[in-house]
Amino acid sequence: MRTTIRQYADRGVGEEMLNRLLEEASHTQTMGNLQLYSVVVTRDVEMKRRLAPAHFNQPMVTAAPVVLTVCADFRRTTTWCECREADPGYDNFLSFINAATDALLFTQTFCDLAEKEGLGLCFLGTTVYQPMSIIETLALPRLVMPVATITLGWPAESPAPTDRLAVPAFVHAETYHDYTPADIDRHYAAKEALPENKHFVEINAKRTLAQVFTDCRYTRDANVAMSEGLMQALRHQGFL
Amino acid sequence: MRTTIRQYADRGVGEEMLNRLLEEASHTQTMGNLQLYSVVVTRDVEMKRRLAPAHFNQPMVTAAPVVLTVCADFRRTTTWCECREADPGYDNFLSFINAATDALLFTQTFCDLAEKEGLGLCFLGTTVYQPMSIIETLALPRLVMPVATITLGWPAESPAPTDRLAVPAFVHAETYHDYTPADIDRHYAAKEALPENKHFVEINAKRTLAQVFTDCRYTRDANVAMSEGLMQALRHQGFL
Repeated sequence: MRTTIRQYADRGVGEEMLNRLLEEASHTQTMGNLQLYSVVVTRDVEMKRRLAPAHFNQPMVTAAPVVLTVCADFRRTTTWCECREADPGYDNFLSFINAATDALLFTQTFCDLAEKEGLGLCFLGTTVYQPMSIIETLALPRLVMPVATITLGWPAESPAPTDRLAVPAFVHAETYHDYTPADIDRHYAAKEALPENKHFVEINAKRTLAQVFTDCRYTRDANVAMSEGLMQALRHQGFL
Repeated sequence: MRTTIRQYADRGVGEEMLNRLLEEASHTQTMGNLQLYSVVVTRDVEMKRRLAPAHFNQPMVTAAPVVLTVCADFRRTTTWCECREADPGYDNFLSFINAATDALLFTQTFCDLAEKEGLGLCFLGTTVYQPMSIIETLALPRLVMPVATITLGWPAESPAPTDRLAVPAFVHAETYHDYTPADIDRHYAAKEALPENKHFVEINAKRTLAQVFTDCRYTRDANVAMSEGLMQALRHQGFL
């Protein structure tokens, strides 16, 4: 069972292997077979150092041999159209969502393939938190937007798998069946009873696990501020 | 090598197998281990008929034994918070992108697992084109937004794999290297030379393959109109 790997061995990831995995991942389903993504590969120490603040200086960014920034990319397709007497109309929100979808499906296939190869990786959700910093560091032009970052290397740890909600918690038959308080109790009981989660509540001096999320990890104020930054970045990149 | 399957055998997909695949897919990386997605399973013939128009009546929707609509879902997490004295702040754009990311990564893992099981599937990008129709049909409440649809069944065809751009076309070292016309010629030459693509240009009475995309398949007018509809749906669901 997969786990996130944040500690990497002192061993590089060869370019040949990386390119093979990227090639295999490129067979993922993609809109109109357009492959609306690009991958920026960061190996340079100084470039990792420059990327790190956008990811809240999480140590994986500078410690991993390779960092991949996967971008929603309508730039290449648009340039292709411009070179072929075609009028591209992809500077809009739907096109961003289409390209982000392509990019994320590609990313997940890549992750599965890399893990099968024995590599360890961490998916950084922080990519969309301060995108302008990443856009500047990687020189991403108009119609290119970072949507996922993977730190990649050979595992130097083997953490236990984390818990998941059971299938009935997230699967609905025919229509969405909204959650009653009794449903919530049933679906979240196992998670809330885990010793590591109880510990988590304790060290954060909260009364419930949910409060750790709302008050510490993903607060309203931060979400609202970062939503505005994300919109600004989409405008800057020409998608809004 | 994977291919999209649009023709399905007259054989059902058992609930036990489906739930096992959904459970396995749920181990995909997810933000804060919150699993910000839900899956609505459509088996009912009448429900498929009602979903079809949102997908431009593509025949897979009514022909497949199972249709899965994967949704970005902050509803369940928000209800959990409300039941646990926590103040959820997830009615914003960043939270939508976070949940959509979770949902799409989950979707791709599910697709890989289903294909390994021998199932065939088609990913419907149309999910975000007319989302309000899907929202109404599936009774999706506030903070639930459809982002991917999978039609699933046992393959009754074995189409040839489609072409892909080579790795150098979508991978950039250290920074983004913008595409010159010469780059475009080099990266797209093989695609443009394919007999099926030449045929595609011919039957659409266009001069270039790119024009088939800009003038027929994904036009500016349709993209602009559907961007507005997508934004309206995000506002309706409380994410904007």
